[in-house]
Amino acid sequence: MRISRREFSRLGALGVAAGLVPRGMAHGWAQAAAPWAGPKVGYCVIGLGRIADHFMRGVKGSSTSTITGLVSGHREKAERIAAEYGVPRSSIYSYEDMDRMRENKAIDAVYVALPNSMHAEYTIRSAKAGKQVLCEKPMSTSVKDAKAMIAACEQAKVLLMIAYRLHYEPTTRRAIKLVRGGALGQVQSMVSANGFNESAGEWRLDKALSGGGPLLDVGIYCLNAMRYLTGEEPAKFSGYVSTIDKDGRFATVEENTSWVMQFPSGIQASCTTTYGAQMPGFYRVYGAKGWLQVDEFGYEGLRLTAEYRGDAGPVKLDELNTEKDPEQFVRQVDHFSECIRTGRTPDTPGEEGLRDMEYMQDIYRSAGVVALV
Amino acid sequence: MRISRREFSRLGALGVAAGLVPRGMAHGWAQAAAPWAGPKVGYCVIGLGRIADHFMRGVKGSSTSTITGLVSGHREKAERIAAEYGVPRSSIYSYEDMDRMRENKAIDAVYVALPNSMHAEYTIRSAKAGKQVLCEKPMSTSVKDAKAMIAACEQAKVLLMIAYRLHYEPTTRRAIKLVRGGALGQVQSMVSANGFNESAGEWRLDKALSGGGPLLDVGIYCLNAMRYLTGEEPAKFSGYVSTIDKDGRFATVEENTSWVMQFPSGIQASCTTTYGAQMPGFYRVYGAKGWLQVDEFGYEGLRLTAEYRGDAGPVKLDELNTEKDPEQFVRQVDHFSECIRTGRTPDTPGEEGLRDMEYMQDIYRSAGVVALV
Repeated sequence: MRISRREFSRLGALGVAAGLVPRGMAHGWAQAAAPWAGPKVGYCVIGLGRIADHFMRGVKGSSTSTITGLVSGHREKAERIAAEYGVPRSSIYSYEDMDRMRENKAIDAVYVALPNSMHAEYTIRSAKAGKQVLCEKPMSTSVKDAKAMIAACEQAKVLLMIAYRLHYEPTTRRAIKLVRGGALGQVQSMVSANGFNESAGEWRLDKALSGGGPLLDVGIYCLNAMRYLTGEEPAKFSGYVSTIDKDGRFATVEENTSWVMQFPSGIQASCTTTYGAQMPGFYRVYGAKGWLQVDEFGYEGLRLTAEYRGDAGPVKLDELNTEKDPEQFVRQVDHFSECIRTGRTPDTPGEEGLRDMEYMQDIYRSAGVVALV
Repeated sequence: MRISRREFSRLGALGVAAGLVPRGMAHGWAQAAAPWAGPKVGYCVIGLGRIADHFMRGVKGSSTSTITGLVSGHREKAERIAAEYGVPRSSIYSYEDMDRMRENKAIDAVYVALPNSMHAEYTIRSAKAGKQVLCEKPMSTSVKDAKAMIAACEQAKVLLMIAYRLHYEPTTRRAIKLVRGGALGQVQSMVSANGFNESAGEWRLDKALSGGGPLLDVGIYCLNAMRYLTGEEPAKFSGYVSTIDKDGRFATVEENTSWVMQFPSGIQASCTTTYGAQMPGFYRVYGAKGWLQVDEFGYEGLRLTAEYRGDAGPVKLDELNTEKDPEQFVRQVDHFSECIRTGRTPDTPGEEGLRDMEYMQDIYRSAGVVALV
């Protein structure tokens, strides 16, 4: 199946997309959007690193949203990007003076794309400035911070969405529909892996910035996938952390984390994540009638394969999503802008991020590590 | 790479096969066999179920071995098979009178292909009858029995080999060579799954015969693979057991087992096994330079895929082993017959089976289950 975003939106307009996932699931999913009315939602991007670039290109491709402000510690870089996206120089802020954006009516929302340890501070300051908040995952570096972020946004009466972009991505939604819809029969267990061989000097390897090892940055994809696939919340966790390479990269964070978790229904998941190996993201779901696999948690190239016994005989699927980056970011920002316009809660609110923080804390705890407190 | 057994044997004769795995590994591996001399080794098959059929067809295809006796509770079935394999009627035994095979000089060895709970008794009786013992895996249904089997064979001065047929299979040996030889760089972690949707009424679902759930029958492949790939013995285990289907199949054994284990080097493995889902066997190994996957633990169709950074650039492998069943059984029986001829210890002796029994007990214990004691 090759489906473009345009086609997917059309399915949405026909009411098909809204019906992709049965009602009564643990998570809500994006409803088909009504035609966009009124001015675009203006976003201020806080932190101009790599993921911010994907986000801004996504906004450029969106009909609902626009970049109206930047926060950066590098004025020159910010001015170059401002010129590219048509942001007035007066809407470029430093980390020190960004609270002034309260007066900037062109900024409706912020996108927090900073290292993990700064998510809480800038989410809370943005909320206090009256701005809606889209924050990258992991939500924070502690459960306490995550709760404070939710409370601050509630108090300021602004929406908080965590940027779980795959919740809005067609291959992921298709997998969820197949699994929860019973195509595989009763699911028994799942496996998932996601990791990469990180280079020395990256901020992810500095616990003061990242809050932890690969579990927070890439393992979170496995954890979150197991949850959205089952629609259940995991009840038990057990895992290990290890560091093999003594090359200076892993002075403050661990290299590997592997864990098993069990859901209330009895469904099990075995997962692994690393900063020390080539580990293309994937999950495989095993059910009584067959299995389903999705390869890649990245920005493009997701591929769904499956083999199961259908009502009318054996089914074999091999579906590559040919959408290109930054399409996932278009979908994500469209969803948040729609929520801002209508006042509805995002499908991946702060509470979704908080749950993953709590579960990652449980995984660490099972490995004998006190973390994310 | 498509390599026939003939070609593989030729590599062996050239001394290549013997060098497949670096010296000093935890396990020894089959040396290249010298040309077969003298009469074939005569095997008595104890238990005439499905796997015995594969074994006997393997012996038929072997130049080293022959079927010279049968033990069965079904005289008619035994006579039919005896006629097919040229076994004299006088060499057909019942379970009650099989000890008489002591006097049968045509029987050098036995192949124990009974339900797991009977492995110990028939291994020990065969040893006492002076016969070399090839026993199916899992070795037994308790650590105590496994130790008694090893002791009985030592006392009787007969060899004991556990039928880990993949240790003798070319794709498996190729994977081991790549992983241990450093093609992937430092290995960080692995994932593995193996299971199937078992039918009601099968002996595997009766704990009195099987000793436990899918871990013993199919999960053991994941456990053993993680050991032969790393050449290390796992040091820590943590897992869960669960039963989801309430359809009467799982009255005495659990439906699912998932676990994580860690090796002394820090390498981790995340595994799952089931009797309730379609779960084609596979493992994937993640290293600093790339990954390697083997699909299928079955009797044929093993496929190795890999992507890694080689010395001369990127390497991409996709190698299907086109050998057909019962070729794996030919290789296995050839190895044991060679050991019998030369008196050397098999590559998968009783101690190999005992280790898996102890580790499976550890996995159960971590899940709060006292088993295999």
